[in-house]
Amino acid sequence: MEAAGNGPKIGIDGPTNPMVTPLLTDLYQFTMAYAYWKAGKNNERAVFDLYFRRNPFGGEYTVFAGLEECIKLIANFRFTEDEIAFIQESLPSSCEVGFFDYLRGLDCSDVEIHAISEGFVVFPKIPLMRVEGPVAVVQLLETPLLTLINYASLVATNAARHRFVAGKSKLLLEFGLRRAQGPDGGISASKYCYMGGFDATSNVAAGKLFGIPLRGTHSHAFVSSFMGLDEITERSLQSCDGSNVCEDFVSSVQTWLSKLKLSYLLGGIFGETNQSELAAFISYALAFPKNFLALVDTYDVMRSGIPNFCAVALALNDLGYKAIGIRLDSGDLAYLSCESRKFFQAIEKEFVVPDFGKTGITASNDLNEETLDALNKQGHEVDAFGIGTHLVTCYAQPALGVVFKLVEINNQPRIKLSEDVSKVSIPCKKRCYRLYGKEGYPLVDIMTGENEPPPKIGERILCRHPFNESKRAFVVPKRVEELLKCFWPGRSGKDREELPSIKLIRERCIEQLNQMRPDHMRRLNPTPYKVSVSAKLYDFIHFLWLNEAPVGELL
Amino acid sequence: MEAAGNGPKIGIDGPTNPMVTPLLTDLYQFTMAYAYWKAGKNNERAVFDLYFRRNPFGGEYTVFAGLEECIKLIANFRFTEDEIAFIQESLPSSCEVGFFDYLRGLDCSDVEIHAISEGFVVFPKIPLMRVEGPVAVVQLLETPLLTLINYASLVATNAARHRFVAGKSKLLLEFGLRRAQGPDGGISASKYCYMGGFDATSNVAAGKLFGIPLRGTHSHAFVSSFMGLDEITERSLQSCDGSNVCEDFVSSVQTWLSKLKLSYLLGGIFGETNQSELAAFISYALAFPKNFLALVDTYDVMRSGIPNFCAVALALNDLGYKAIGIRLDSGDLAYLSCESRKFFQAIEKEFVVPDFGKTGITASNDLNEETLDALNKQGHEVDAFGIGTHLVTCYAQPALGVVFKLVEINNQPRIKLSEDVSKVSIPCKKRCYRLYGKEGYPLVDIMTGENEPPPKIGERILCRHPFNESKRAFVVPKRVEELLKCFWPGRSGKDREELPSIKLIRERCIEQLNQMRPDHMRRLNPTPYKVSVSAKLYDFIHFLWLNEAPVGELL
Repeated sequence: MEAAGNGPKIGIDGPTNPMVTPLLTDLYQFTMAYAYWKAGKNNERAVFDLYFRRNPFGGEYTVFAGLEECIKLIANFRFTEDEIAFIQESLPSSCEVGFFDYLRGLDCSDVEIHAISEGFVVFPKIPLMRVEGPVAVVQLLETPLLTLINYASLVATNAARHRFVAGKSKLLLEFGLRRAQGPDGGISASKYCYMGGFDATSNVAAGKLFGIPLRGTHSHAFVSSFMGLDEITERSLQSCDGSNVCEDFVSSVQTWLSKLKLSYLLGGIFGETNQSELAAFISYALAFPKNFLALVDTYDVMRSGIPNFCAVALALNDLGYKAIGIRLDSGDLAYLSCESRKFFQAIEKEFVVPDFGKTGITASNDLNEETLDALNKQGHEVDAFGIGTHLVTCYAQPALGVVFKLVEINNQPRIKLSEDVSKVSIPCKKRCYRLYGKEGYPLVDIMTGENEPPPKIGERILCRHPFNESKRAFVVPKRVEELLKCFWPGRSGKDREELPSIKLIRERCIEQLNQMRPDHMRRLNPTPYKVSVSAKLYDFIHFLWLNEAPVGELL
Repeated sequence: MEAAGNGPKIGIDGPTNPMVTPLLTDLYQFTMAYAYWKAGKNNERAVFDLYFRRNPFGGEYTVFAGLEECIKLIANFRFTEDEIAFIQESLPSSCEVGFFDYLRGLDCSDVEIHAISEGFVVFPKIPLMRVEGPVAVVQLLETPLLTLINYASLVATNAARHRFVAGKSKLLLEFGLRRAQGPDGGISASKYCYMGGFDATSNVAAGKLFGIPLRGTHSHAFVSSFMGLDEITERSLQSCDGSNVCEDFVSSVQTWLSKLKLSYLLGGIFGETNQSELAAFISYALAFPKNFLALVDTYDVMRSGIPNFCAVALALNDLGYKAIGIRLDSGDLAYLSCESRKFFQAIEKEFVVPDFGKTGITASNDLNEETLDALNKQGHEVDAFGIGTHLVTCYAQPALGVVFKLVEINNQPRIKLSEDVSKVSIPCKKRCYRLYGKEGYPLVDIMTGENEPPPKIGERILCRHPFNESKRAFVVPKRVEELLKCFWPGRSGKDREELPSIKLIRERCIEQLNQMRPDHMRRLNPTPYKVSVSAKLYDFIHFLWLNEAPVGELL
């Protein structure tokens, strides 16, 4: 924990991943920094906006995430001698040594960062972050800030979308570590999926780092590592209240299995179950009598896994333990979950075991938004979903195009033109507001020039599409929320916004998603949320645009 | 650098990313380890195979990568007290404390790892890694090994595929850091793209960690940060050989710009160029006279960027410097590269500047296999490609399904059945060979039981498809290569294969790709490479399968 150079001493830890250093950037940030320095421009005051151009996954909303890690980087942004030596090696030998002295003294004490709060629902073109400071320093920050925001926001959004389809009552478990894009992909995924509305992760490292609840039971390998019941040597199990001991839990399970086989309601559904599976389940129950959850699809769900599970669960029940449930990891999850539920309910009825019909059903196996949606349509009895590959790699769209554009330098607004109108940047140092309507929904986000008066509650304001002349609307806001807050004041003397805990960010995110008008959130043909500029900013953009664009000649 | 517990002291550093610890695993590996321990099974000797089921990107080959990081993890696999305390917190409080003492003493000194060499071309079903050891320990390794192999192999394969389309003569630059899935996604991408055949990266941290060549110049922000030529105060530039000084390099550039405007061959192509762009180019050239490469599409490539670049390059040329070239980052890259080339060639001819026509052209902007292929078909003049998002996020398929399956425990072979034949595992501790034909191409990979005699050069051997009875072929190999080598001997006393440098792995990978029969490598409808089992293993698989599968009843 090192305070930023000459700036105020603020005790902010470094980034979670120690590999996030000022070297985690593109070489061209250093070549540019050198060129700025060489031209005497390095301390010119620049304003960059960090924003994206299109919501991911064909949706109309995005969850902003990654801010805390950015501030942790900024607060500790200093080069080590070792890093400076490497930069010197990597640049042409003609570079003057004065530059490396400049890097030696460099930190972010003169940088000012305004950002939208982490966990907010955000929209295209609105700056998620406005970074102001000496142009060479801010330029160096471009790549690490993008790296820390791009994936974080993408995967948090993906998690929120999965939650939306699964419904609020389901337990959502992130199981993606093994398929993630590298170790940090895995750890970030666990963090930001939790932020976006998941309940727990399988990733132990993420549990330790961020306090995310952990979940997990056993795999197919555990089941197939057993050969038969004679492997179980220690067969006794104490009852839950400690009042008695069952000397042969294996026999007790076998007795239940025979009862199930002969049962009136279940009769004939299954014959001989797989004995190595049964041995695995019994061993697991002996190890975790209070937390018995079994993976039931290693051999055959309905003919082996479910009867074996129920026999063990009923034997546990005799000792006062309540089994947690089953996990299904293959096959037709809608059908198998419904059949399993019927089986559990039949047992509750026939053997009078209260709540046995409500035994938990967890489903996994390559789940994604589409399969969750299909399960909903077919009808299913799943209580918890374990989601991995599609969630953490953002399979449906593995990258979010967050960009970092210069909008002002030395108080001069700058615009980046493009053949593609959607790629034209919105110039000027700006303020951004979210305007709420009388029903409590956000209606529109609006960007204004830094010095324009803010929109006022109850006063009509014209909101214009930044590039489309004909799209404009008057709005009378019932509430006005300024979006960009100061998270790193630099030398400005402003108050610094606190970095809340991940649990608070998660709650804020869920609340933010809940307050959106439902038509923006639906999976199919959602309505775009409106993003606008003030009339004054509109006029200025178009004045600047005409000024900068070369006049074509048709030859 | 810590040697593995009780095992032989081997000086192998820990994983590149310090977040790769024994906690980077799924919780269920610990619950299973506990259940194994509780059942007295934890030291049973197990063999797990790590393999994938399908080549990615619709292709018929995969590059194996990530092995070195796995061995680094294994060599340093020890729990800290802090980690053990966290595991204890995370497991049910009923867990016996003896288990945590067991974890305290645990390392990989009794684990044995055979693997295919990193950088090899590999195919479905063949174990990339065979991990043998106490079942509880090997189980704990599952998730981190998968995490380290899955993305590494995926992105190395993606890089190899991009190289294949771009052709051997092009320079390929990885520019993906800002869009990668987290910081480690970025650093791993840089490492494994280089391994898969890229030439350089923009990622400075990866350059430092792995010695990968670095590339980069400047961005649009650099260009738009300039307002005009009067910003350039220091205007002198020494000639390349130091023999003289041009006192006003700006004027020299302006003179060239006028000449170009009046030129016979170029006459009328452009009018007034953008002066802030010109100022940026001149500043960059003054900073890097030997490495002048300009991004030419901030305003208008043919009407501003190219003439401005050429004027600066020609002024540099007067002083004995040779400009490197231009970068195009938008628009029709085929057309713009050809037009730029014509412009350069016209200058070479009219002003007699040797080799000016060969000035380098780098292209970037959302490139991928398809766009490279389209550029090839249209014809282009690009010398170097900068590829980011699609490369590092593996946009076309962001996950490789590498799995880790138990194939033997206590010398008993195990099989994992599935409704889906492609998901049935191949049981037994196995050996794997690559058989080469008389033309030098690999013909087929074959798996045999551990104790079967190896295939012999010149002797006919029957290669059978593991699951399809009718697919089989006799092969007379001209060369036999054993694929699985011992990278971690544990207590076996075997020799340990060295971990070669990344440069050597890269060379091996390029060589491996070159020796494949071209029809396996083509983008459209490639021929699947054959993967087989010996006749003896085939019979055994099917015996075991019938033994384990429940007999169905049609009701």
